[in-house]
Amino acid sequence: MSVLIIGTIALDTVETPFGKKQDILGGSAVHAAISSSFFAPTRIIGPLGEDFPEEHLTFLKSRGIDLSALKKMKGKTFRWSGFYEFDMNQAHTRDTQLNVLLDFDPKLDEETKKTPFVFLANLDPEIQLKVISQLKGPKLVASDTMDFWIKSKREALHEVVKKVDFLLINESEIRMFMETPNIPLAAKRLLELGAKAVIVKQGEHGALLFTENAHFSAPSYPQAQFKDPTGAGDSFAGGFIGYLAKTGDLSEGNIRRALIVGSVMASFNIEDFSLDRMKRLKKHEIGERFEEFKKFSEFEALSAAHFA
Amino acid sequence: MSVLIIGTIALDTVETPFGKKQDILGGSAVHAAISSSFFAPTRIIGPLGEDFPEEHLTFLKSRGIDLSALKKMKGKTFRWSGFYEFDMNQAHTRDTQLNVLLDFDPKLDEETKKTPFVFLANLDPEIQLKVISQLKGPKLVASDTMDFWIKSKREALHEVVKKVDFLLINESEIRMFMETPNIPLAAKRLLELGAKAVIVKQGEHGALLFTENAHFSAPSYPQAQFKDPTGAGDSFAGGFIGYLAKTGDLSEGNIRRALIVGSVMASFNIEDFSLDRMKRLKKHEIGERFEEFKKFSEFEALSAAHFA
Repeated sequence: MSVLIIGTIALDTVETPFGKKQDILGGSAVHAAISSSFFAPTRIIGPLGEDFPEEHLTFLKSRGIDLSALKKMKGKTFRWSGFYEFDMNQAHTRDTQLNVLLDFDPKLDEETKKTPFVFLANLDPEIQLKVISQLKGPKLVASDTMDFWIKSKREALHEVVKKVDFLLINESEIRMFMETPNIPLAAKRLLELGAKAVIVKQGEHGALLFTENAHFSAPSYPQAQFKDPTGAGDSFAGGFIGYLAKTGDLSEGNIRRALIVGSVMASFNIEDFSLDRMKRLKKHEIGERFEEFKKFSEFEALSAAHFA
Repeated sequence: MSVLIIGTIALDTVETPFGKKQDILGGSAVHAAISSSFFAPTRIIGPLGEDFPEEHLTFLKSRGIDLSALKKMKGKTFRWSGFYEFDMNQAHTRDTQLNVLLDFDPKLDEETKKTPFVFLANLDPEIQLKVISQLKGPKLVASDTMDFWIKSKREALHEVVKKVDFLLINESEIRMFMETPNIPLAAKRLLELGAKAVIVKQGEHGALLFTENAHFSAPSYPQAQFKDPTGAGDSFAGGFIGYLAKTGDLSEGNIRRALIVGSVMASFNIEDFSLDRMKRLKKHEIGERFEEFKKFSEFEALSAAHFA
């Protein structure tokens, strides 16, 4: 089944301990769509400026991504500039130029409205709600957000929480949003607010899944190569929803696998700047890394004899 | 087989968002020994002041802990006072009164020297080295440390690393010690320095095992009850070494299980202040929580059909 990704399309300027890159391809929708494209037919919608380099569109097309709903808008592409320090866990923003993002108000055509799997990447929750209201019988809707919206649009975000199947949120954001440091408690509150499932992204520490009846802790990966964390969460989301769309199986067991697939995709994305690692990524590497995740996290039950 | 635990015995004053407790039982050796005592015969050595309340010794004895090597020293018991803020990940020290810890220079008797499983809890690495030099044919030696020693006694700590089988260290400490934010790289450097295995304690995020040929990522536990993180790392270590001593099995599979047992014990320890939860802990609860860890972290391989 197919996937619709809606989010930002950006030109990033990123500095990490491993280098500085100017105006490189980025944006939440781009990272998510590239990741999803390894699994399922993927359509992307995002605000595109007149200055957006043709080579990036060529790259998206080469991954089979459907660009038919993408229209160049009058003005310049959204730009983010930031840096990461020593531990690279926290992005520090230097400059944000919203540009065409200010006028982004996606109108979905009839075909797009019927996409079964939808990921609303980080955007103004009011825009996310507008998109949700246009969808026709989606099988699964997942959404992401960020601290900025938690602070500035809490009410709209509550509405989003009520309307999505999977809310993706990182550790510090869920603590801020639900006003408790206790993540299981924060997740419980989000489920009570109406989310069907909550996925807590923990960066290098893995990811957690909370539903009313289930809990899953996806392991961390011992990441030796690590150059640029930008887009890790969106690569995770794209792999997660792409894999679910590919398999069409929403059992808990398959959702667990989807979290690992998401973790696998994020672990590749951060190995190089921008989408550079994803450009080189081969399908068999995904399966091999999934196996590594399994190997690295398996343990056997206690022997009854040894534990009387 | 039996376990020897050497570390501090303390009276702690602890403040967390859940309350403030004065002069409660604590210390690295106490937390580790209580945890180990659920699995194996455990002997404890640590600096004990004349003012140490008899009721705490009665409690240690009630857990079957061998106190024969424990001698009251002239002076007052070591005291630590600290607090935890909102997220409880970081202890903030208000006051440290070393007292009898200043004169602690453990001399092991002949029987104690032959203990097969030894845990050197957080202490001056020079004291740890003195203890190691007295051991006769230990089967396994594990050690812990802290940022204070990394800053002040780096050379001695290098010597400890060379001489132990398992180095237990937390995330921020391993980054500081090996001067890299990259934990797999930091662990590799410690293995190159001579450690046979490195266990990185990640608090609420679980734990990692690194050896030359193996990696294991122990999952986090969705901790709903969480009052006081003091002693979590030592409870982890005590459960880890106690379980290994009980089973006598040093295969990688069993070491993985030992990491989970350690995580289980830490998860109980933090449910209440001091050792209060451990006082109420029943053996069957340990097995049940181990099963929860397993249930919460299992996932199946990708279906070849779905991932062609």
